[in-house]
Amino acid sequence: MDASEFDSWMRAELDSVEQALQRWVSPDAPAGLGEAMRYGVLDGGKRLRPLLVLAACEAAAGDRNAALRASVAVELIHAYSLIHDDMPCMDNDVLRRGKPTVHVKFGQAQAMLAGDAMQALAFEVLTPASAEPDGFAPALQARLCGLLARAAGHEGMAGGQAIDLASIGRPLDEWKLRDMHRRKTGALLQASVLMGAACGELPARGWESLSQYGAAIGLAFQVVDDILDVTQASETLGKTAGKDEHCNKPTYVSVLGLEGARKQAQTLRERAQAALAEGGLRHTARLSWLADLVVDRNS
Amino acid sequence: MDASEFDSWMRAELDSVEQALQRWVSPDAPAGLGEAMRYGVLDGGKRLRPLLVLAACEAAAGDRNAALRASVAVELIHAYSLIHDDMPCMDNDVLRRGKPTVHVKFGQAQAMLAGDAMQALAFEVLTPASAEPDGFAPALQARLCGLLARAAGHEGMAGGQAIDLASIGRPLDEWKLRDMHRRKTGALLQASVLMGAACGELPARGWESLSQYGAAIGLAFQVVDDILDVTQASETLGKTAGKDEHCNKPTYVSVLGLEGARKQAQTLRERAQAALAEGGLRHTARLSWLADLVVDRNS
Repeated sequence: MDASEFDSWMRAELDSVEQALQRWVSPDAPAGLGEAMRYGVLDGGKRLRPLLVLAACEAAAGDRNAALRASVAVELIHAYSLIHDDMPCMDNDVLRRGKPTVHVKFGQAQAMLAGDAMQALAFEVLTPASAEPDGFAPALQARLCGLLARAAGHEGMAGGQAIDLASIGRPLDEWKLRDMHRRKTGALLQASVLMGAACGELPARGWESLSQYGAAIGLAFQVVDDILDVTQASETLGKTAGKDEHCNKPTYVSVLGLEGARKQAQTLRERAQAALAEGGLRHTARLSWLADLVVDRNS
Repeated sequence: MDASEFDSWMRAELDSVEQALQRWVSPDAPAGLGEAMRYGVLDGGKRLRPLLVLAACEAAAGDRNAALRASVAVELIHAYSLIHDDMPCMDNDVLRRGKPTVHVKFGQAQAMLAGDAMQALAFEVLTPASAEPDGFAPALQARLCGLLARAAGHEGMAGGQAIDLASIGRPLDEWKLRDMHRRKTGALLQASVLMGAACGELPARGWESLSQYGAAIGLAFQVVDDILDVTQASETLGKTAGKDEHCNKPTYVSVLGLEGARKQAQTLRERAQAALAEGGLRHTARLSWLADLVVDRNS
């Protein structure tokens, strides 16, 4: 697969994801809640997690309907976490994806509720009734709910955010920093890969390979995020740059230095590619391109 | 079943629920998050929702392991909603169950995260891996996740809270007030009954009967809440009394008057009892007592 093939696959899949999000995040939710939810998740974001779900599903020759729903569910969890993370009691950010954040636009109460409702919606999307035309096996529904819940909760994303909160102004060593990010960002990225993989049936070796791939790109993503925070302007990022240093938050750049962080990102890219190669899976080219995308992105 | 039999059943079940919550809401969550989660859900609350799950499971001769997990899950959703609801950007309440609210004790950021993590944990509890000793059928896991997600999300609880938010200082007619409460409180109470029922296998008539019972007590609960808010002191309620009037929120008392609200509660109790009687189910005595408990409670 060359770059242009990957590119057209990606554009087609981004279209599918956008349509699925449009369908699932209804404007009909009462009292402006639907509007706030849509504002928080539509028309923005790189959709990296949905792409990982869909590419992993292909690698596992899995059920496309299930994977599309799973991709919507992980993106909803990601988007809700950004809404809550941006609130004044957390990071107090006013800019996200180049637009005012949800609480700036709709008020804090509505922002909190929109995030809460988006988390619930993620599990709703994963559990279609058997009568729905794009339904899928209940056992897979349960498996996907379990993977997502564990990645989103206290062992995963929410736990990582609690560590983040507690670490402001305190030095963290590389081990603790990695533990924080493995939970905060890594768990959901890895879960995206595993949820896609769960849509098919993989032998243990293939599953383990995708699990290690997911862990490596999960960490790589955060290392690159930390690099971009110091090297890019806010306009490119679509969010406030230099924020980590300003808030005295430990980052890979503050712990390893800029060059050390860049090396670390390359090492993790190689680890991801090596893990992919070891699984005995056929269709991993897109996952391989996605690992490059994670490391080479500039926003 | 007489009052003392019901009472000892209830005490035994409350013990089981408390132990299950103790087990599931681990203090190990990082950076104080576990402590905040436990503070928000342990040692307090009437546990009405768990009791409804367990009583409905008995009426459906269902899987006790599944129902116990379901009872933990609904209580987690309920407790998280209280934490978020009490925050300064929402109701700004400092007292809950006679103790300082979670954000007063742990700060707003940790309170928001604890609530977020508790919602995820609810779905984690519902999806045990097949290797776990008290696991249960994946198809039932998916069904329970679906019922809970729909009750918690924009069509249910979160949607009701958005309406609540938008209605402050505005007159609502009885129909709109009922719509708000059907979502805000009723949906999760009804889901508690239905999740318990789903743990067994009921014919359509039995399911419909429990569904109507759940809808009636869901509404009755809120009517009684509104009555207690004007008739009881804060010490009895364990939360700030007179809050609704102070915040200029429409309530059943403000719309129907105190006597009208009391009549409404009795009507809903009778509707719940009638629905129970129509289902052709055997073991509904505990559900019947629970309906009385909802209406006759004084806190």
